[in-house]
Amino acid sequence: MTALDLNVVQRLVDASLAEDRADLDLTTGSLSKYIDWRQGNAQLAARADGTICGLDFALAAFAALDPDVRFLPEVSDGDHVSAGQTIAVVGGQLDPLLRAERTALNWLQRLSGAATITARAVAAAGTRTRILDTRKTTPGLRAAERYAVRCGGGLNHRDSLASGVLIKDNHIAAVRLAGGTLGDAVRTAIAHVGPATGVEVEVTNLDEAREALDAGAGALLLDNFALDDLSPAVEVARVYNAKTEASGGITIEQIPDIARAGVDFISLGALTHSAPALDIALDIDAG
Amino acid sequence: MTALDLNVVQRLVDASLAEDRADLDLTTGSLSKYIDWRQGNAQLAARADGTICGLDFALAAFAALDPDVRFLPEVSDGDHVSAGQTIAVVGGQLDPLLRAERTALNWLQRLSGAATITARAVAAAGTRTRILDTRKTTPGLRAAERYAVRCGGGLNHRDSLASGVLIKDNHIAAVRLAGGTLGDAVRTAIAHVGPATGVEVEVTNLDEAREALDAGAGALLLDNFALDDLSPAVEVARVYNAKTEASGGITIEQIPDIARAGVDFISLGALTHSAPALDIALDIDAG
Amino acid sequence: MTALDLNVVQRLVDASLAEDRADLDLTTGSLSKYIDWRQGNAQLAARADGTICGLDFALAAFAALDPDVRFLPEVSDGDHVSAGQTIAVVGGQLDPLLRAERTALNWLQRLSGAATITARAVAAAGTRTRILDTRKTTPGLRAAERYAVRCGGGLNHRDSLASGVLIKDNHIAAVRLAGGTLGDAVRTAIAHVGPATGVEVEVTNLDEAREALDAGAGALLLDNFALDDLSPAVEVARVYNAKTEASGGITIEQIPDIARAGVDFISLGALTHSAPALDIALDIDAG
Amino acid sequence: MTALDLNVVQRLVDASLAEDRADLDLTTGSLSKYIDWRQGNAQLAARADGTICGLDFALAAFAALDPDVRFLPEVSDGDHVSAGQTIAVVGGQLDPLLRAERTALNWLQRLSGAATITARAVAAAGTRTRILDTRKTTPGLRAAERYAVRCGGGLNHRDSLASGVLIKDNHIAAVRLAGGTLGDAVRTAIAHVGPATGVEVEVTNLDEAREALDAGAGALLLDNFALDDLSPAVEVARVYNAKTEASGGITIEQIPDIARAGVDFISLGALTHSAPALDIALDIDAG
Amino acid sequence: MTALDLNVVQRLVDASLAEDRADLDLTTGSLSKYIDWRQGNAQLAARADGTICGLDFALAAFAALDPDVRFLPEVSDGDHVSAGQTIAVVGGQLDPLLRAERTALNWLQRLSGAATITARAVAAAGTRTRILDTRKTTPGLRAAERYAVRCGGGLNHRDSLASGVLIKDNHIAAVRLAGGTLGDAVRTAIAHVGPATGVEVEVTNLDEAREALDAGAGALLLDNFALDDLSPAVEVARVYNAKTEASGGITIEQIPDIARAGVDFISLGALTHSAPALDIALDIDAG
Amino acid sequence: MTALDLNVVQRLVDASLAEDRADLDLTTGSLSKYIDWRQGNAQLAARADGTICGLDFALAAFAALDPDVRFLPEVSDGDHVSAGQTIAVVGGQLDPLLRAERTALNWLQRLSGAATITARAVAAAGTRTRILDTRKTTPGLRAAERYAVRCGGGLNHRDSLASGVLIKDNHIAAVRLAGGTLGDAVRTAIAHVGPATGVEVEVTNLDEAREALDAGAGALLLDNFALDDLSPAVEVARVYNAKTEASGGITIEQIPDIARAGVDFISLGALTHSAPALDIALDIDAG
Repeated sequence: MTALDLNVVQRLVDASLAEDRADLDLTTGSLSKYIDWRQGNAQLAARADGTICGLDFALAAFAALDPDVRFLPEVSDGDHVSAGQTIAVVGGQLDPLLRAERTALNWLQRLSGAATITARAVAAAGTRTRILDTRKTTPGLRAAERYAVRCGGGLNHRDSLASGVLIKDNHIAAVRLAGGTLGDAVRTAIAHVGPATGVEVEVTNLDEAREALDAGAGALLLDNFALDDLSPAVEVARVYNAKTEASGGITIEQIPDIARAGVDFISLGALTHSAPALDIALDIDAG
Repeated sequence: MTALDLNVVQRLVDASLAEDRADLDLTTGSLSKYIDWRQGNAQLAARADGTICGLDFALAAFAALDPDVRFLPEVSDGDHVSAGQTIAVVGGQLDPLLRAERTALNWLQRLSGAATITARAVAAAGTRTRILDTRKTTPGLRAAERYAVRCGGGLNHRDSLASGVLIKDNHIAAVRLAGGTLGDAVRTAIAHVGPATGVEVEVTNLDEAREALDAGAGALLLDNFALDDLSPAVEVARVYNAKTEASGGITIEQIPDIARAGVDFISLGALTHSAPALDIALDIDAG
Repeated sequence: MTALDLNVVQRLVDASLAEDRADLDLTTGSLSKYIDWRQGNAQLAARADGTICGLDFALAAFAALDPDVRFLPEVSDGDHVSAGQTIAVVGGQLDPLLRAERTALNWLQRLSGAATITARAVAAAGTRTRILDTRKTTPGLRAAERYAVRCGGGLNHRDSLASGVLIKDNHIAAVRLAGGTLGDAVRTAIAHVGPATGVEVEVTNLDEAREALDAGAGALLLDNFALDDLSPAVEVARVYNAKTEASGGITIEQIPDIARAGVDFISLGALTHSAPALDIALDIDAG
Repeated sequence: MTALDLNVVQRLVDASLAEDRADLDLTTGSLSKYIDWRQGNAQLAARADGTICGLDFALAAFAALDPDVRFLPEVSDGDHVSAGQTIAVVGGQLDPLLRAERTALNWLQRLSGAATITARAVAAAGTRTRILDTRKTTPGLRAAERYAVRCGGGLNHRDSLASGVLIKDNHIAAVRLAGGTLGDAVRTAIAHVGPATGVEVEVTNLDEAREALDAGAGALLLDNFALDDLSPAVEVARVYNAKTEASGGITIEQIPDIARAGVDFISLGALTHSAPALDIALDIDAG
Repeated sequence: MTALDLNVVQRLVDASLAEDRADLDLTTGSLSKYIDWRQGNAQLAARADGTICGLDFALAAFAALDPDVRFLPEVSDGDHVSAGQTIAVVGGQLDPLLRAERTALNWLQRLSGAATITARAVAAAGTRTRILDTRKTTPGLRAAERYAVRCGGGLNHRDSLASGVLIKDNHIAAVRLAGGTLGDAVRTAIAHVGPATGVEVEVTNLDEAREALDAGAGALLLDNFALDDLSPAVEVARVYNAKTEASGGITIEQIPDIARAGVDFISLGALTHSAPALDIALDIDAG
Repeated sequence: MTALDLNVVQRLVDASLAEDRADLDLTTGSLSKYIDWRQGNAQLAARADGTICGLDFALAAFAALDPDVRFLPEVSDGDHVSAGQTIAVVGGQLDPLLRAERTALNWLQRLSGAATITARAVAAAGTRTRILDTRKTTPGLRAAERYAVRCGGGLNHRDSLASGVLIKDNHIAAVRLAGGTLGDAVRTAIAHVGPATGVEVEVTNLDEAREALDAGAGALLLDNFALDDLSPAVEVARVYNAKTEASGGITIEQIPDIARAGVDFISLGALTHSAPALDIALDIDAG
């Protein structure tokens, strides 16, 4: 699993510390008589079962305010934890620790939430079908959430509109408005992209699947196919040496059946747009 | 309800368009022969019941790429919609519309999700107790999510660490490590802030509540109080003319009982850290 | 006294070095034959009495261009210095030292100027009344100037419009245009803010003071009150357990009398908008 | 007089509005029931005599929040105003007007302060000797303050270290540490700069002045020269067709005598580092 | 041909105007007595034959300083011009026109240079083989230079490392260090990317070509193949339905022969890293 | 020769790594099973003769992704290399090395290209006449390209419009439209600039040269002078103690004759707008 670039982590964390005005914490500042220059330890602990993601974000938040902070993780990104389990021990000056607490937790809880739901989807899909994310990510957090999906065992779909061609329903509607067909769209796209660009096409039935494959599509996005229609589509795609991806409001419960139909990929927007945060707490040790 | 500053909306939307590389859409670009300079219309429609938030974001996404886009909302931010209801009609050039589609939807779905869950909490709380958000927001999206909470009828808590003093469990733990008491913390904080800054204190039982109020706290955060302990805390706070806020993993189901205990505010992190996106679609009209 | 976040210092200093084009110093560059790679020492010395503020800024300027610079302060921020006194000794490569000289001095002179005038005001106010700054700060320098005020012994008022409610004359004028009263304004504001937000109200006479207090104001800004009117306002505020702040073109000479009237705070815009720079020089040691 | 680039004005003003969190004004927001969408007028008026500078800044602040604001100046930048005189009338929505008020005033007061002191210096210098600013400007505000100096009738010295060579005391000290002379420094600098770059040299006595001129200096900075020593230096510089600039803690009172000595320029750091703000108020019209 | 996003153009042009300090033009500023507020016209004319690219950049430069500028192009991006031909007429205030002149020309000359060399390569390649750019672009100018390549009739290769898989010599060397083979690399890559990502492989001989194709490569980069070896590689690739790209220091003179060998693409780094600027002048009309 | 500020280098390199999405390298990421955490070495080698410039850029690219990279240069910026010569050895983790490869090479090849052509011009000019760059630089790369010119032995002309006055043909045309003369322009400019600013004037014949010198010009830009006209212009300039610069599409072949005419400077836009990249390769060592 490719880790996230630490420069990207730092930039994201710095922006979130600024958003929370960690530089100007009225509460900690007003208590400086008690807190300034005092050291302490704290525990990061899970309050629910899940898959951890974002330890570098938590560390970056604490270290941005206290370069000498000690951050000792007891698990790694991608590990499963149980409720009550310690995730990391943090030690250092209390003032920066208190300023960074909420930011560190916001990142860790959110990314662990996405990793947790992904891990459930991956477990449901078995070993042959891969779970994919989508571009339905939180604005500004795409790189982080894609990493969370990897931590949960998922695979990343296109990073952005600049990475690969995916001709979707609305593209086809636009081409049809201009008098073209789905097949025309596929052929035209292939003629305009370079040798390292894949071309995938969203289809809604078997006829469209055949039209796309005849026109040269390298992969099919099978959108909202009934379960019985998936296998025939997968079979015809294999004849053309093309990949298949099932999509469209798929729930974790539906994944095993869809995987059994033989698709190469199942993509779920919910991994990133609807994952609840994993409950994680930070508690300063009593003296 | 205070609207969100349009400059802030534009900045957020521009960053998300850049993240999605809307300037370099391989798919639309490869189909330019069919799509360039062609006009069309599309419907933004809800696929589930909920409260709408983020119309300015959707408009900003489309307008960033097509300054002449026509965006005709049929509802306003804060309105309830039913599954199937049209939210807005978008008309203009198809090329920028396709490039901006996902970004517009990502904003609208996410903010409407937060507004929807807030509206449910507000309905559960009745007219006397106000629903508050927390600082458990998505990194980078705090201003937007706070607006979504307002759209759902909620009230905003502190914007950041720079806005108001809230002495929480870990602050008190830190003060105790230095030999101080909860009351010392409150008195010290009050002595170090200016005349426009409020001082709220997190307490976990009635004794702490009294200690905080004696020391001058203007408001109490009643954290994880048992339902039976809430009313006594509210009563003693009223004697000191102080506000009360209930907090701690509260579910929508628990809100009516907690509200009946007489607290001024109930705060819920889940409004912003665990709200599922509201399902909204964009469909280009067939010719 | 809470120190300034070093990341904030670095960002401010980097911007000012860029503004002065320290990367492209024509003079030092044209003399590189004599200066490149040569080491030397220099003295930072006060040329007038005052209170020092900004040593981290000076250090950050030198260190940005020479990470190995030696910066040995002989005083600390907040210390009083006399004309002629050495503030710090700087040693390192002469080329970056010459490039950073003016930027380091610009920060140190300006912030020490604000700290100096604040210290005078604090001394005039005695021990019971606190000196406050205002939002009349230099654009871009608010965090730095607020720190200078703390170095001079002052207390910080609101950081920004997002930190606390202060209903001023123009707000009240606007409410009156809409048919509301000062009391309406206060009650409405209190109903729309969360539990950690203070509400202060500017009043111009005793009647307004009572109206504001009856409506629930937590603090009064007594604007341009005649000296004789201050004590009665302070007394009535105490009945309501509210704070009082005197304001309005107050000079250092007027501070003792105003403080004797019993106000909790005196705020002065001049601390930040009209403080003359403290004269400080940098001199390279002759060989 | 060259006006300031409006893009620069907008960027500076936007940053200062963000610093003041004009997007998140708790006070105006909490009073939205009275203020939202309501129109009104306000007067910008001088409370002291002075020279106005910064009308574009004030306009930019109001217009950033209300693109339809009406801003009707009654004077222009560079004009003298008397206490009580109206500077501009501002009309538009009250909500953005209240949010932008402090930012607009902070710019206008500060820049008018610098213009006012410059105008006094220019008047003292007469028609032959020009008043120059220095690089002793407020960090981040150099472009704006240089414009204020122009509004006051002054001339701008170097914009930055990248604009012209000025060999100062510390440069000469560094060259001497390397075994070079003042003359060596001047000759070396001249050999390393292109045809559009001037070379000025700081000298402290007549001998140094002659050495610099012999080496080819195009201008002399006469630093802290006694009044009697100025005229001889000016005379020798004229022989070499070189310009002369007097500098070094010069007060407005000393300017006439120094100007009479015949120098081409007098430079004053105080124009930008110690100018008190000009008192200017904004008052919303009662209905 | 997909046009360049105007927001991207504006951002690039604004940065270059700032780099040239168009806000602080000493020359135009010192001549303001003659130039301020005066209108005039100027001709943009080619001084050599070539293909034009960058009219939006030139317009953006002039319009950034004079929103009312009149910019009347006589050709379009992608058009061929002859030496002496007028490209556009520019009319408006002379002051901003003079400030923006060099920036406008720098963009127009450079992008037209890249378009010109691309057009030559495209003409040499004939109709079947497409000319591709590479990632050997000028740092910061990739989007602009890719657009110039499109203006010259070329096709764009990968936008960045995030767009498509291209396994190059150094990747294969790294895999071999770990004990893997070229085929292993291809299979592993294919298993780790989503359905919209293409996989291209650099090969240096026919055996490697077969190994890559057997492992599933969708395209081959034929690096520095002798002319005689190209046709066999193209033939075997066709069997696998894979694309072929010739690369490696190819000159325009070699293109016809290489194209005749049947490759789908020829890529040239020189389009962007070594294209000489097209000579273009701006001349203000005499009165 | 003054080195380039390392902060500037880092900022430029970081932007170019981001442009290439080095954080999201699909190829290296998909091969992580073979590449992650594996170490290796690579050679940077010249494939053509030239002058090296940009080693700090290459190092910064590698170090941004691998802070522990070993970068051992075998030459220095400004050194001549022959085809085949090793420039540097790079050792460290293979993953970041592969991600940074293209960015490092893009900088090194481009800057070495500019240094190489400059070195040729300098050699052609001999020891008395200096080679100057112009403002015809690549947008965004001015600081880097000016450094490349210094590495090639050239001298830098104005950094920007803010550095020195250069009255060019279009300025004079504008002044004439307003009824002024070339001499008026020069006198006016001199009266409006400070003592450290040079004033150079573009002239097209001997009469204009005399007019400019009479008005006080400190240097002449002799634009497109016939070879025979250069010497007379140089002679008259010497009488006025003014510098001379030849300019206007000068080729390296013409430089010796022009230098012999006695001009102080020859400026060439081609140093920065038309220099072909120097061919440099990176090869990972086989095991």
